Amino acid sequence: MTAKPLSGKELAAAIRADITARATHLTEAGTPPRLTVVTATEDESSAWYVSSIAKAATKAGITCDVLDRGPDASADSIRQTLRELSADPAVHGIIMQTPLPDGIRLDDIAEAIGVEKDVDGANPASLGRLAVGRPAFAPATAEAVIELLDHHGIPLSGVQVAVVGRSAVVGKPLAHLLINRDATVTVCHSRTRDLPAVTERADILVAAVGRAGLITPAHIGKDVVVIDVGTNATDNGLVGDVAPEAAETASALTPVPGGVGPVTTALLLRHTVQAAEQQRA
Amino acid sequence: MTAKPLSGKELAAAIRADITARATHLTEAGTPPRLTVVTATEDESSAWYVSSIAKAATKAGITCDVLDRGPDASADSIRQTLRELSADPAVHGIIMQTPLPDGIRLDDIAEAIGVEKDVDGANPASLGRLAVGRPAFAPATAEAVIELLDHHGIPLSGVQVAVVGRSAVVGKPLAHLLINRDATVTVCHSRTRDLPAVTERADILVAAVGRAGLITPAHIGKDVVVIDVGTNATDNGLVGDVAPEAAETASALTPVPGGVGPVTTALLLRHTVQAAEQQRA
Repeated sequence: MTAKPLSGKELAAAIRADITARATHLTEAGTPPRLTVVTATEDESSAWYVSSIAKAATKAGITCDVLDRGPDASADSIRQTLRELSADPAVHGIIMQTPLPDGIRLDDIAEAIGVEKDVDGANPASLGRLAVGRPAFAPATAEAVIELLDHHGIPLSGVQVAVVGRSAVVGKPLAHLLINRDATVTVCHSRTRDLPAVTERADILVAAVGRAGLITPAHIGKDVVVIDVGTNATDNGLVGDVAPEAAETASALTPVPGGVGPVTTALLLRHTVQAAEQQRA
Repeated sequence: MTAKPLSGKELAAAIRADITARATHLTEAGTPPRLTVVTATEDESSAWYVSSIAKAATKAGITCDVLDRGPDASADSIRQTLRELSADPAVHGIIMQTPLPDGIRLDDIAEAIGVEKDVDGANPASLGRLAVGRPAFAPATAEAVIELLDHHGIPLSGVQVAVVGRSAVVGKPLAHLLINRDATVTVCHSRTRDLPAVTERADILVAAVGRAGLITPAHIGKDVVVIDVGTNATDNGLVGDVAPEAAETASALTPVPGGVGPVTTALLLRHTVQAAEQQRA
């Protein structure tokens, strides 16, 4: 058997078409949607990612500014920037790009992002709201996993999901999104004993660690749907957390690139348009 | 085999001794620690619980006020009360007691409780901070489970824990506390298929649903430690979520009453003393 590929491209295109129409409407109504990405790094892959967001935003009719604070920015100065942007009525969405300068934690400074503009769900208050089912933006990557599963008609209620990875930007918020959709969720991580024994029992396996080849056929039971959130830069280009051989075992698998990634970018833009609509209302 | 009883009484007494000393010190230094419990219900078991907290507080040297808004209070008026208390420098800890008037959700109004005074972790922002490992008070019941396991020398790192129940006050915050302690955590609930198959694989089973007798011997595998968070009023008195027969199967089990309960009350008071110390600093 070879896994059915769960592409994210069609879904991303559909989301982009929807938000382009909504962005046009907002602009005509005098509220051009505006996203600001704050950076504080010279990391090249980060710069590449930011420029791809900016391009996609522009194409959808969303103004995207990149505000570079440089790799020596202090936590206080970044916080001040985030607070000013949160108070600026012309800005609807704010993304704090990682990596950050040494010693600065995203979840620490992200409390300075107003929850209503926190389009990548970086403020812990957004995560808390998400957990209890109150209005908040989820981290786009976590939400992309849910949207992809829905798009491909994979049911969530009552199924067992193993989430490998416990980060504040993917594993933890995704666990809440899945629990709120009635899945039974196991959060696994580097300290999990006998990971294959845990993951092979799952109906859906989500790999979100950021280590190439972490998930092998040994981790994958019968008829398992595998969602690969990893994006690891290697000599062979961008690869996921799932080893290529896993495609022989899984029943369905998201490609990297072309799976979760394009949906994530589209959702960041959708959140920005939603934020503009809500702030206008 | 009969399960080893995991009493919470000795631990609760040790916590109370510690906080009584700290409360005395605070009072002598001119900051008498003060807790306010806000109620908006005529529920009798709630009134009984509140009076037991007030008694325990007084005994430990903590002033405890109960502010009754009555069963017809509106969400806005309760929010206003919580905001005023959050702004009052003489109040260090605030508890919003449930049940609430019809149609009012705790996680909605609890955003009006300042995070630094949110001694029962009711504000979703506290839950978000907890999830990412930032300073915040956990809901006392969730933290009581961790403290009890630590007190009885039961390791958490690398073990499998099944948490049955996904409430915002126990299941969800407890999952984060356990994940942050390197446990592999599965959150189960009413939609979980074949619950016994999931729970019998666990090293530790936490029952936090609020249904008497939900957990039977069929749910309990070999050598499983069972923590019973349930407190259900029945004709036979207060009983947990775990059926009495389970004591024959489990390797260790918390009694109800006398297990998680007394530790929870002690932790509410410890949080209040901590809050007073922090607000004084």
